[in-house]
This record gives sequence, structure tokens and C-alpha cells, in this order.
Amino acid sequence: MDGQTDRWLGAPLEQLPTPALTLERAKLRRNAERMRERCAGLGLRLRPHVKTHKTLEGAELATGGTRRGIVVSTLAEARFFAAGGFDDILYAVPLPGTRLEECMALAQQLQAFQLLLDSPTALDLLRQHPLGPGKRWLVWLKLDCGNGRAGVRPTDPAALELARAIAQGAPEEVTLVGVYAHCGDTYSCHDVQAVQAIARATTIAVLNFVTTLRQAGVPCPQASIGSTPSCSHPVPEMAQLTEVHPGNYLFYDLQQTLLGSCQLEEVAIRVLTRVIGHYPHRNQLLVDCGWAALSLHGRHQAPMGCAAIEGHPQLRLVGLTQEHGQVEAIDGQVEFERFPLGSILALIPFHACATAAMHPVYYVHAEGKVVELWHPVRGW
Amino acid sequence: MDGQTDRWLGAPLEQLPTPALTLERAKLRRNAERMRERCAGLGLRLRPHVKTHKTLEGAELATGGTRRGIVVSTLAEARFFAAGGFDDILYAVPLPGTRLEECMALAQQLQAFQLLLDSPTALDLLRQHPLGPGKRWLVWLKLDCGNGRAGVRPTDPAALELARAIAQGAPEEVTLVGVYAHCGDTYSCHDVQAVQAIARATTIAVLNFVTTLRQAGVPCPQASIGSTPSCSHPVPEMAQLTEVHPGNYLFYDLQQTLLGSCQLEEVAIRVLTRVIGHYPHRNQLLVDCGWAALSLHGRHQAPMGCAAIEGHPQLRLVGLTQEHGQVEAIDGQVEFERFPLGSILALIPFHACATAAMHPVYYVHAEGKVVELWHPVRGW
Repeated sequence: MDGQTDRWLGAPLEQLPTPALTLERAKLRRNAERMRERCAGLGLRLRPHVKTHKTLEGAELATGGTRRGIVVSTLAEARFFAAGGFDDILYAVPLPGTRLEECMALAQQLQAFQLLLDSPTALDLLRQHPLGPGKRWLVWLKLDCGNGRAGVRPTDPAALELARAIAQGAPEEVTLVGVYAHCGDTYSCHDVQAVQAIARATTIAVLNFVTTLRQAGVPCPQASIGSTPSCSHPVPEMAQLTEVHPGNYLFYDLQQTLLGSCQLEEVAIRVLTRVIGHYPHRNQLLVDCGWAALSLHGRHQAPMGCAAIEGHPQLRLVGLTQEHGQVEAIDGQVEFERFPLGSILALIPFHACATAAMHPVYYVHAEGKVVELWHPVRGW
Repeated sequence: MDGQTDRWLGAPLEQLPTPALTLERAKLRRNAERMRERCAGLGLRLRPHVKTHKTLEGAELATGGTRRGIVVSTLAEARFFAAGGFDDILYAVPLPGTRLEECMALAQQLQAFQLLLDSPTALDLLRQHPLGPGKRWLVWLKLDCGNGRAGVRPTDPAALELARAIAQGAPEEVTLVGVYAHCGDTYSCHDVQAVQAIARATTIAVLNFVTTLRQAGVPCPQASIGSTPSCSHPVPEMAQLTEVHPGNYLFYDLQQTLLGSCQLEEVAIRVLTRVIGHYPHRNQLLVDCGWAALSLHGRHQAPMGCAAIEGHPQLRLVGLTQEHGQVEAIDGQVEFERFPLGSILALIPFHACATAAMHPVYYVHAEGKVVELWHPVRGW
């Protein structure tokens, strides 16, 4: 609703134009609180990743109002959250050399703008561009503990070499803050036990590396791992880290229920859609939610595909084009009279990060009414 | 680049922050011109669908500067194009009853705001809400000629009945403008011959229905079919229609090359990305383009997955997370020295509509420099 969203404050959910991304405030608060409690119980700092929601309000909730200590996935997010009063922002993508100027501006603006790197090339670049008096580049070494995306493997001699170079090369200009690993490989698991095995292995790999650093006389104050699956059921070993950085848990989603991270009742995100067609000859309903409002994530991964239909386990979303969704009965006939044209279905998305990325506004509700409108940042 | 995009006007492409959606102006112009010529050659009006790009500039190009006669897929698009000086706008999703007020406002504002419907319920709704003196609801009957999404089947007696009800029920309030079919089933084809068979069958089904209407004394001036595959290689029978409504052809994409709609050289869209990591131990490059800049469309459909890497047929994009892409060699070793950190790769997306939906700005270029910035409308 291009620029006209404010008029929906106070409106009952049933009046929203569809498709609409809705978030249940009580669940958001509970998800935020439980993750904070879980981390506090382990003596870990929670540094929430904001990439799922990309909103000031979501990050406010996730940081418990401190606005300190977040992870971002783009420089657009870094600037947006810095402008919104956040600080201690970790940009968790290997430093792109061509965007050093933007990083310098953020480092000057914030008390703590933190970078990730995994190559001597990136370190050289930082050294060649010192921040000047009173400021140092704050660097986390990215470790790859089996996830196989960014990072140096902690068992690779190059890892120790790079950590040493970061910490000791030019201490007035560059500081080694910590080591950072993302256990994204937890997403290929099928149960909590498997998730915990990966979390444990990642934690031990990180801690062993920190021990190696200590023995080599390389100071490395922080150690962080993360992913919503691993942080939803943390293993005791994680208490030896200093922080964790999950993000998706604020919303949760269908994928997280399949991974065992949460119960379906904890999922805060829905896409509301309306029935716009009845096609009895092919036993299908048409709804006004296509991939433009849901994404195609989950299509080949989940038994329910891209979304489950809340309260209607007998129905299945079988097709998505840009603005249309096709709904079928799993067995037998669709009861068309139960779903008149205009009636609302609530879709529980497979992947909240991907679904949220499709929406310019999120409608936050309490007791069936819209109480907040959240506007995410986009772009890079 | 949140709000800072104007500074890139005049910049060489190599300086753009990545990921960046780029469009080659010469190709856009050529694609627009060729489709206009093709339609003119058949005596057909071209009513371009704007859902792929959702920009004023794209629609200006596609309409040859007339700003008259477009198809939109959302009411947000309808309002955006109306505010941008466009008229004769067809909203091509079955009329959602709950949004009638918005449709009424558009119908009052424009000379020709046109609606699609496929049910007596929607027609009743229009009748109950006449537009007042001098204005009529302009309605297209949506036909399903085998695509199996929205629409009534032209062979279903309900189709004639509904057409008659639209045309004759309350002629001062509701007018039957035409019949409209989308041959989206062309997207499941593997060659031009198969696409043409569907285009021919759809055209004949539509024309037969128009004949039936004429014989029944129901006036139906217009008949429109569309899809980029069918309109890229139109069959002679299509000359008997009054208009066509393709959209994707302005950009084209990898999917269209696989369907035979275009040559790879005609694809105007790229996503520029930079190499941000070298991982020789697993023979992979990391790039700063994930699904947030590309979408996951094509992952299980195309031999190259979500994108081809221009000029590097030996490389393949094998993994996409939110902001990271993993690139491998199809055979043998990645030549890492050819792709230093910071070097740019140009990705040719599988599905331009889906990729464009991820970007708040498109960088249009000529002779290697940014000459225009296009800002799409989002939401519903």
C-alpha cells in the first residue's frame, strides 16, 4: 500500500489489503525474550543478526532496547541502523575492497563498527587505510568450521598466520576483536540432535582455535558462533564462547519447525491472502499471494512447499506465479463453500528471511488489530 | 545504495556498488522496438505488461512514448502508473472484492481503468457499486484456455452466460470490453514449436469464443492473449486478435533463451557481483550476490541454475544464501588468478521478473556508463 500504510494502524487484520505480511507482537516479544534468557543463562552475549527483518523496531526488540550489538548483512543495513541510533554493528560479509570508503565512514561515525575478514588481501587494504587518531579497525576473523561458505578453516595454518597478522601487524591501526563462525550447515539437519552435533563441533573448533591463538600469544577476546537452529537448543559447550549471533528466531518460520528450532505456535510471521477464485473443475482455489509476496523458498524442500495454510491442514499451496497462488485439497474435494471469494487464509512461510525480503511494510498486530507498521531497509 | 543512487549517474559500471541490477539501454530499446514492430506487422495493438520492471521509464519505452495501454499486476502499480501520467490501464488479476474502493478511485481518475473478472460474484459487486454519470466499469472476461490459473474455460457454458451478463445486465454501468487469456502454459515448453502450438490453440479458443459471442448477439470488441514466449514468435492466427500483452520481453532472461524466445545477446538484464573470497581447497569463488539480489528462481529448472555467468561458461553458480553466492568450475580447477578479489562477474538471471523484484533501483547503461536510474514500485 504505497505510502498509505499509516491508515492501517488500529485496523482489524481482516481489513488489511492482501497480500500482507503480519507479525504477532506477543510472539515477537516472547521469541526475543526467550533467546535473551537462553543466552543470559549461558553467560553469553546475544548479538542478534538483523537480516531477517531489517527494521529498527525488530532490532530494538532483539537487543532488549539497548540498541547495542547487532550483526548486519549489507552496508545499507549498517547505515540504516547507525542512523537509527544503533551502535556496535558487525558487518558480517567478507570485507569488499571496493566499498572501503563506506566502511571508513561507518567506522568514523560509530563507536564500534566491526568488520569480518578471511584474507590477507583484505587486511592489507585496512592497513593501507588507517582510520586516524583514536580509531582502529575492529576486525573479526571469519572461520569456516564446516559450513563451507566464507572463512578460513581453523585447522589451516593460514588461519593462525592471518590471526597473528591482524592482531600484531599494526596494533595502532587494526585490532583483532574475535573469531566468528556461522554454522549454516545446521540448516541441512533433520532434527535437534543433528543440529546440536554441528553446534558442538563448531563450538569446539572455534574454542580450540582460540586456545591455539592464546598459546601463540595472539590476543583474541571474543568468540562468536550462530544460526537460529544452534541457538534455539544450545549445547553446554557454547557457554565457553563470548557471544552468539542468531537472527531468524525473532520471526521463526516453517523451516525452523522442521529443524526442531521451535513449535509452530512460536512462528510470528504470516502472509495473509484472500481467495480470489473458485475452480471446481480442477479442484482449486486461487489466492492473491504469489511468489512476489512469499518467495519460492521451500518449493522443493518442504512437504508443504513454500508455506503451510494455518488451520487448514487439508489444503496445500501447489502453485505460485507472480501474484497468484493455487491451493488444492490434499485428499478429496476442496470445500468451496467454506472459502468464499474474499475470505482470508493465513500462510506460514517456509523461510521468513526470504518472505520478509518481498515486503515494503510489515503489519504488527496484537489482539487482532494492527498496532505497529515496520518498514525494512532494502538494497546494498 | 539507500537514497544515494543519483551519484552513480555517469559512473562507469565497474564503479557500481554490488550487487547491482543493470540494464543495457540499447538492448531495452531494441527489445521494445522489435515487439512493437512485430505487433504492428500483425495489425495488433501491443498492451505491454509492466510487472517485470514496474517502472515509469520501462513502460514509457514499451508503449513507444504514448503512455497509453498497459497491463498491471497490482493496484500499487495501477496507482503508480496513473500518477505517472499513464492511462488505459488494465488490472489483470481477478477483481478482489475487498479492494473495490481503490478500483473505484482509479476508475474515476483515469479515462480507462480496466478490470478483469471471471465470476458472477465479482460482476454483482460492480453492479452494486456503479461509477455514476459518464463512467462505466470497463470489464474484460478472463478466459482460461489451458493455462489452468484464473479464468473461465471458453467451452464451459458458464463463460457465455457470464459474458452475456457483463455485456447486457446493466449496459449503462458495466461494459464488456473484451476477452483476455494468458498463455502462461508456454513456460513449460522446450522449443518454439511447442510454444507456437500453445499460442495457436489459445488464439483459436479465444476467437471461437468471440464467434460464439457474436452469434449470441453479445458485443465483445477486444480479444487479447499474451506471454513473452508466444509474442516473441507469433503465429499468423494471432493477427485476428485485437491486442497482445507480453511483458518480460523488455528485459528477457535466461529462461526466455531456453524457451527460444530470444538469443542470449538480446537479454538486457544483468546482476553485477564481485568476487569476495577464494577457497581453493573446495575449488570455489565466493561472490557478493545471494538470493536477496537474484531470487532462487531457476534453481531446479535450468542447467545453469539461477543464473549464467557471462563470458565464463566454465563457471557455475552452485549455491546462494542471502548475500553470498558460491561459484565453481564445471570441470577442473577454478583459475583463481583470473578472478582476483574485487573483480566483477555479470550474472544473467534465469527469471528477470523475480530478480528485478529484489532491487530498489536498476542501473541503465550505455557505452559502459550509467545513464539512467529506474526506481520500481513495490507492494500491493
